[in-house]
Amino acid sequence: METVLSSKSKTVIISPEKPFVIIGERINPTGRKKLAEELANGDFSRVRTDALAQVEAGAQVLDVNAGVPGADEPASMRQAVQKVMETVDVPLCFDSPNAAALEAALSVYQGKALINSTTGEEAALERVLPLAKKFGAAVIGLCNDERGISQDPQVRLEIGRKIMARAADYGISAADIVLDPLVLTIGADSNAGKVTLETIRLLRRELGVNVSAGASNVSFGLPDRPVLNAAFISMTMMNGLTAAITNPLEPTVRLAIMAADLFLGHDASGMKWIKDFRKREKARQAQDQKPAA
Amino acid sequence: METVLSSKSKTVIISPEKPFVIIGERINPTGRKKLAEELANGDFSRVRTDALAQVEAGAQVLDVNAGVPGADEPASMRQAVQKVMETVDVPLCFDSPNAAALEAALSVYQGKALINSTTGEEAALERVLPLAKKFGAAVIGLCNDERGISQDPQVRLEIGRKIMARAADYGISAADIVLDPLVLTIGADSNAGKVTLETIRLLRRELGVNVSAGASNVSFGLPDRPVLNAAFISMTMMNGLTAAITNPLEPTVRLAIMAADLFLGHDASGMKWIKDFRKREKARQAQDQKPAA
Repeated sequence: METVLSSKSKTVIISPEKPFVIIGERINPTGRKKLAEELANGDFSRVRTDALAQVEAGAQVLDVNAGVPGADEPASMRQAVQKVMETVDVPLCFDSPNAAALEAALSVYQGKALINSTTGEEAALERVLPLAKKFGAAVIGLCNDERGISQDPQVRLEIGRKIMARAADYGISAADIVLDPLVLTIGADSNAGKVTLETIRLLRRELGVNVSAGASNVSFGLPDRPVLNAAFISMTMMNGLTAAITNPLEPTVRLAIMAADLFLGHDASGMKWIKDFRKREKARQAQDQKPAA
Repeated sequence: METVLSSKSKTVIISPEKPFVIIGERINPTGRKKLAEELANGDFSRVRTDALAQVEAGAQVLDVNAGVPGADEPASMRQAVQKVMETVDVPLCFDSPNAAALEAALSVYQGKALINSTTGEEAALERVLPLAKKFGAAVIGLCNDERGISQDPQVRLEIGRKIMARAADYGISAADIVLDPLVLTIGADSNAGKVTLETIRLLRRELGVNVSAGASNVSFGLPDRPVLNAAFISMTMMNGLTAAITNPLEPTVRLAIMAADLFLGHDASGMKWIKDFRKREKARQAQDQKPAA
């Protein structure tokens, strides 16, 4: 199963047969006060530096969220998307619960985008799937519905199946759906990790679909989060996760993804690993040679 | 399936329902020139400090290898085992291809040991299984045989099945067999990681047996080995590895094991993770307060 995304000049394929795809999560004002202020004032300079830094660090796709409470989200989203397209040439993922904001982004975008996201709720499906069809975009489907988030992987699987069936009703192919197993915080429920891991396995095995997650939630509230997130992402990849919305500037997680890709046979002879190691060594040496402040 | 090991005063259970078991690998003169010299001279001081340090770092079982070329291995093994038993009270794993050395160790050991190892070769099975039966020990079975090491996980599975059948012929229960999927170097064969991961999954699913590996071979020859080993061990645990012969003094790998245990539901509310974090913080602070040398 290949989910093909594109920008004006670049194509990215999400597939179990290809290297894992990092969707950079940084362009999102949630919890980032300065970015929120800037977006509210129509200042997109941080959006541009965030876009550049994430692509430089290995993000193949960028998530764009421009939702600031009280601001005109469709206008803000349209501008943010234009600025990001001017800055980098990777495919984009539009992140909003607001159909008008998604439509604003899709209208100005040049390429095949990813919509983040629908759930299995009828209202969400009816809002998001027609947009995906109209603009030829792919869609992330979260495996929850009107009943909330189930702790039973089989229920999440059935919601995933329903999302795919509804998408098919709209003429959207299975390849254009990326399911999200949902990642809850293990600090709140010791079983949360296991449920997500089993859901990923089921989604891949039963539906053959691509699977993406925002994996870093899992460690919320615990110490040494990058170490936890690194182990978790390797485990999700073992079970078939094919993409993640994450921060590529976090080196521990980025390296765990590269390592897992190597073990899954997506880095022949470790050439990418060795090349990245050399780059890291060079950066370290440059850092060491700087005079102490 | 529970593999029960014991020392004079401690019991360790290897089981998919229990936390992962680290078998400390350091008491082994292979590639450790000083330790080899000391063992040849009947000096066991380093064996004792290695035993203490590994148990302090979280090893629940210690591997003991006393094979120095030219030396009397049974005598050396017997003494090493006695010294380790005087020093720490964890169960032990006796590591030798030499039946006389294994018998010397088993004869003086107080408790239920793990023998490392037999293969699926008839000669090895006939040498090792009677010892396991005689001393009531558990046995590691490596999934290779007279034909060598197969690249096909199904072939490794069949060898594992054969080892269990032969053990049953000797009256050794399935719970006393721990299979080793074999870990080859990914630098030599890009497929090596995938083959091991799939073999682990098959051994667990088809035979329901405990599975242990010497997982660090996988990264031989590549840079940043601890980072690779950490990702690999998390992936093997996802597929059902229940123990590993590894170095608990390597913090990156030790933390990846703790993290994976948390996600597999073996650390309720992350209490062990938090406790270990506090211990690490204390050690860091003590280090920072030391005057610069």
